[in-house]
Amino acid sequence: MLVVMQSHAAQSQIDKVVQVIEGQGLTPHVMPGATRTAIGITGNTGAVDKSLFEVLPGVEEAIRVTKPYKLASREMKRDDTTIQLAQDTIGPKNFTIIAGPCSVESEVMTVKTAEHLVSRGVKFLRAGAFKPRSSPYSFQGLGLEGLRILEKARAETGIGIVTELMDTENASAVEESADIIQIGTRNMQNFSLLKRVGKCRKPVLLKRGMSATLEEWLMAAEYIMAGGNYQVILCERGVRTFSDHSRNTLDLSVIPPAKALCHLPIFVDPSHGTGKRAYVPAMSLASLAAGADGLLIEVHPEPDRAMSDGAQSLDFAALDALLTRLKALAPAFGRTV
Amino acid sequence: MLVVMQSHAAQSQIDKVVQVIEGQGLTPHVMPGATRTAIGITGNTGAVDKSLFEVLPGVEEAIRVTKPYKLASREMKRDDTTIQLAQDTIGPKNFTIIAGPCSVESEVMTVKTAEHLVSRGVKFLRAGAFKPRSSPYSFQGLGLEGLRILEKARAETGIGIVTELMDTENASAVEESADIIQIGTRNMQNFSLLKRVGKCRKPVLLKRGMSATLEEWLMAAEYIMAGGNYQVILCERGVRTFSDHSRNTLDLSVIPPAKALCHLPIFVDPSHGTGKRAYVPAMSLASLAAGADGLLIEVHPEPDRAMSDGAQSLDFAALDALLTRLKALAPAFGRTV
Amino acid sequence: MLVVMQSHAAQSQIDKVVQVIEGQGLTPHVMPGATRTAIGITGNTGAVDKSLFEVLPGVEEAIRVTKPYKLASREMKRDDTTIQLAQDTIGPKNFTIIAGPCSVESEVMTVKTAEHLVSRGVKFLRAGAFKPRSSPYSFQGLGLEGLRILEKARAETGIGIVTELMDTENASAVEESADIIQIGTRNMQNFSLLKRVGKCRKPVLLKRGMSATLEEWLMAAEYIMAGGNYQVILCERGVRTFSDHSRNTLDLSVIPPAKALCHLPIFVDPSHGTGKRAYVPAMSLASLAAGADGLLIEVHPEPDRAMSDGAQSLDFAALDALLTRLKALAPAFGRTV
Amino acid sequence: MLVVMQSHAAQSQIDKVVQVIEGQGLTPHVMPGATRTAIGITGNTGAVDKSLFEVLPGVEEAIRVTKPYKLASREMKRDDTTIQLAQDTIGPKNFTIIAGPCSVESEVMTVKTAEHLVSRGVKFLRAGAFKPRSSPYSFQGLGLEGLRILEKARAETGIGIVTELMDTENASAVEESADIIQIGTRNMQNFSLLKRVGKCRKPVLLKRGMSATLEEWLMAAEYIMAGGNYQVILCERGVRTFSDHSRNTLDLSVIPPAKALCHLPIFVDPSHGTGKRAYVPAMSLASLAAGADGLLIEVHPEPDRAMSDGAQSLDFAALDALLTRLKALAPAFGRTV
Repeated sequence: MLVVMQSHAAQSQIDKVVQVIEGQGLTPHVMPGATRTAIGITGNTGAVDKSLFEVLPGVEEAIRVTKPYKLASREMKRDDTTIQLAQDTIGPKNFTIIAGPCSVESEVMTVKTAEHLVSRGVKFLRAGAFKPRSSPYSFQGLGLEGLRILEKARAETGIGIVTELMDTENASAVEESADIIQIGTRNMQNFSLLKRVGKCRKPVLLKRGMSATLEEWLMAAEYIMAGGNYQVILCERGVRTFSDHSRNTLDLSVIPPAKALCHLPIFVDPSHGTGKRAYVPAMSLASLAAGADGLLIEVHPEPDRAMSDGAQSLDFAALDALLTRLKALAPAFGRTV
Repeated sequence: MLVVMQSHAAQSQIDKVVQVIEGQGLTPHVMPGATRTAIGITGNTGAVDKSLFEVLPGVEEAIRVTKPYKLASREMKRDDTTIQLAQDTIGPKNFTIIAGPCSVESEVMTVKTAEHLVSRGVKFLRAGAFKPRSSPYSFQGLGLEGLRILEKARAETGIGIVTELMDTENASAVEESADIIQIGTRNMQNFSLLKRVGKCRKPVLLKRGMSATLEEWLMAAEYIMAGGNYQVILCERGVRTFSDHSRNTLDLSVIPPAKALCHLPIFVDPSHGTGKRAYVPAMSLASLAAGADGLLIEVHPEPDRAMSDGAQSLDFAALDALLTRLKALAPAFGRTV
Repeated sequence: MLVVMQSHAAQSQIDKVVQVIEGQGLTPHVMPGATRTAIGITGNTGAVDKSLFEVLPGVEEAIRVTKPYKLASREMKRDDTTIQLAQDTIGPKNFTIIAGPCSVESEVMTVKTAEHLVSRGVKFLRAGAFKPRSSPYSFQGLGLEGLRILEKARAETGIGIVTELMDTENASAVEESADIIQIGTRNMQNFSLLKRVGKCRKPVLLKRGMSATLEEWLMAAEYIMAGGNYQVILCERGVRTFSDHSRNTLDLSVIPPAKALCHLPIFVDPSHGTGKRAYVPAMSLASLAAGADGLLIEVHPEPDRAMSDGAQSLDFAALDALLTRLKALAPAFGRTV
Repeated sequence: MLVVMQSHAAQSQIDKVVQVIEGQGLTPHVMPGATRTAIGITGNTGAVDKSLFEVLPGVEEAIRVTKPYKLASREMKRDDTTIQLAQDTIGPKNFTIIAGPCSVESEVMTVKTAEHLVSRGVKFLRAGAFKPRSSPYSFQGLGLEGLRILEKARAETGIGIVTELMDTENASAVEESADIIQIGTRNMQNFSLLKRVGKCRKPVLLKRGMSATLEEWLMAAEYIMAGGNYQVILCERGVRTFSDHSRNTLDLSVIPPAKALCHLPIFVDPSHGTGKRAYVPAMSLASLAAGADGLLIEVHPEPDRAMSDGAQSLDFAALDALLTRLKALAPAFGRTV
């Protein structure tokens, strides 16, 4: 159920609606919009009586939401969600670049990468301290030491930190260090982890599962939002199909329906999507054209020496060339890089 | 095997190489390029002796081609193929729009659509006279009468005709009427049909099979080229995956690898790719950005009354709006719409 | 629409119903069953008036069929279809083995294989005279000469011949030579070819398309049946998925729903399904257990010298061992090998 | 690296090898077999010197293992793994049934189900206390209270308990209550969870991920084994494909290659695989025929009143009928139900 307030509704009227919802043993989610406030209701197992709310002062209407996801749906919140961070705002007016190496390999390479990014106007650094690897014998990341290095890179350059959380054990540590918490593709339906980051105060970048439908992906976002954390960024990174010309099949066609059904920002990871650095620039430009709000790109000072994912990482020169093209193209889509 | 001639090679030297190839019981394919001519050799079941050719005057080198496709490969022909038609040139400097209804429904609507397209600078009309339908009880197209209507639309407006050939019986009729012969997705590995259009003198637009790998698709192009028809246009139209947010999963990520491996032009059909008209504009812009050479779009004067595929057809106003955006964007990709 | 006759209905009553159907410009399909005759109606574009038939003498009821396939559906024909051939009956009481090499390579090996099969009680030989190959440069089969060899093998051993038809040009020749006409996976939606074999008087073995849904497959069968040829055998041969442990993903789970929705026999091709001979026996036994009516297996006198598909072909000893196990197991499923 | 001991090797010789391995900073995994002991070595980042071990007394040979999985591979351990539980032995001589409701709904229905199973000779009860649900608003299981109920069912009937662990927080509780710990499909690559159950002393039933390749699945088993828990049971439960006739595409064809590459037992879950109870019996029989070591089946006293997965649950009568068929068929595969 969604209670839509009149555009002139007073705060006291909003508070009253919240009070009535709670009085029914349900959970209110106040979502202020550009012109009016909407209040989502979750926690009901059966139908909720609309008339209960429609008689309250300041209420315009109460709407039954028919999608299995509620808080993530456009029905619940018509306006695009923007996410305000210290470094920049993520949302429909910007095209935000998050770049960096697959994993934090050392302080030197991490700070060097952060410095290069900042010099080119990139506001966010991605790098994994905890790495999900398909082999137990592969490098698993520097762990807490990696988080320290990321904090140092931010302290020295001001760059925002995006890093993956793999389990609830390290949730507090990652929440402390990161500006944006990444949930990886293999954990998109790790519901215990989703519930945990629903309690975090930092935005969450939620990668699409390798074979997740759009609805399952939005339901994963719903898990996080149902916990009270409404700052969720979707990130398409390629799905698994029969197709073998690329590491995964980057599904840019999910962007228009995701935008139609859901108000959250959506990013694209063309590095994992293609698996080959030569194809990253074209798919980055196509992501912008398809309506994405930003990119998550793998960049490494020396891709051929990377401890992981070197084949899909751009070097600094290739990143610079791509940024030049994106900056030139973005205004045609009403955005700024 | 590919015999690369020196850049100053005389025609008589080329003729000699052709003669030697034929003397071995093999088939030569002379492919003139911007700076030099290359001669592909097919028909060998085992290895061919390189030295046989390298000693001939005017020959720079003989190269073993390792891909299973030869004539379609970049190894065989480095330059992008351009296809010259009366109405326009298809290739890397243009972004060519082919638009029209799913099927020829009547003369009135076909001519009306052609007139609108021509008035907006669109040079090619697509419309099916023969329709592959999954049910034997559905409308199967107007057949030869449909071809007559298409010819009439061309006679009245000058527009080029793109229409599907479903079987060898109608090959001569379609070849006669069409400017570009379309091979549909369900026939991508109908090898008898591919061989037949390899004998046609008209360019062939070859749609990707519903679950074809890039290599299988290029091998299908190879079938046509091996018959002597080098004018092949690839057309991505969405592949079949688990994903259910769209009719098919439009695989724009195939464009960069297809361009890297193959010299043929590649188009995108965002109408079949998405199945929903609301998503067509975003995917059209993304196709341009991803490196495509053109679009195949379904347009109908009254989409809601279309006999087939209405849900994915644009009306004239939506097409006009899209064309405006494409024209503005194309120069950033070195192309003209 | 399906008109179900009373169990004691006279032939004259059936004829009357047929006449009324034809009088409406529709097509009657008389389908005699074990206890009663049903008459399917196709050709209608809109709804047909039930009462038109329910008032006729001998009619029990007229039923609207809601599936897009009609003649193939269980609603239309409750009893399992059996197909009577000179060599054996295909249907629910038997588990029929069709075995042989991928392609007819020579008379010697073909006759040798036929002799071995007959000595082991196998009634049908499969071998391709026309071969659909993904490369235009691969062996394309012996063509008409291959058909002559197959006829010779039958003349010498009495074995039934199953061979593929790839195009309408060769339809008469293949219909003449074959006991069962095979339609390959790549032609499952070659609608012109389906219509053509709908006119043949020989049973058709219809392989499932590489990415065909069950409904699309049944619609392909419907194309053949709508033409008047009701003797269709479905054949599962693996579908295309992300999975890479086998050449295709053999979908045995399609058998129970196919049996529930459709009355036609269903075979399994474990050779193409797995692509590796070591896995063929286990999947053959599993096919029997899952409810299949027979197998299409690749067998070659010397698999390692086969011109195609050697890796997935059994040799004679392996076939014999498999036959022994199948014969022992079949009675548990109410069948005879 | 794998060190294979001679068949008469003394325990002291084995101990010496272990000592040398540890002396290199590596991890030994002693795996006793039917005729000889093998000792796997993990923890090496580069190559290990074979000669180091081949000179030791009692060593037959040292073998480099080329698969990315080592402990799970047949190269490492030739004999099928058997898992000894109080209730029964899982392995190549048995066909083990694990049955029960999707979730623990109440003590009454759980005990009732356990009693019925035990009366039919079924030794293991499956039921979820913690439920991974795609919606945060769906019933999430009874949690710790569910574990109490399962313990009670075991106390009253002696049945073994199989239940899912979703996160590391509840690992100790589930390890305490369960006889076999289930890892669900969505957590197959939750590496933190895999590492945690690698430390458990209870066998782990590892479901295949929804789009996991065989290699990824075996690598997930390797994560558990690398932690020291060698008692892993693989469980196929259907993969995600384009196919829509069943909830998932049950991939029975994975059984023969899994058996060829890996020594662990493999089960099949036909309930999730098909999603429809009518198809469960046929796929259960086919699983046995394909070489599986057991089944995981959903059974509910009143499927139509189940809180989850009712459509795919058998009732008691259907289970009984299936057991009768399985018991009759198992000896043909050298197994006992």
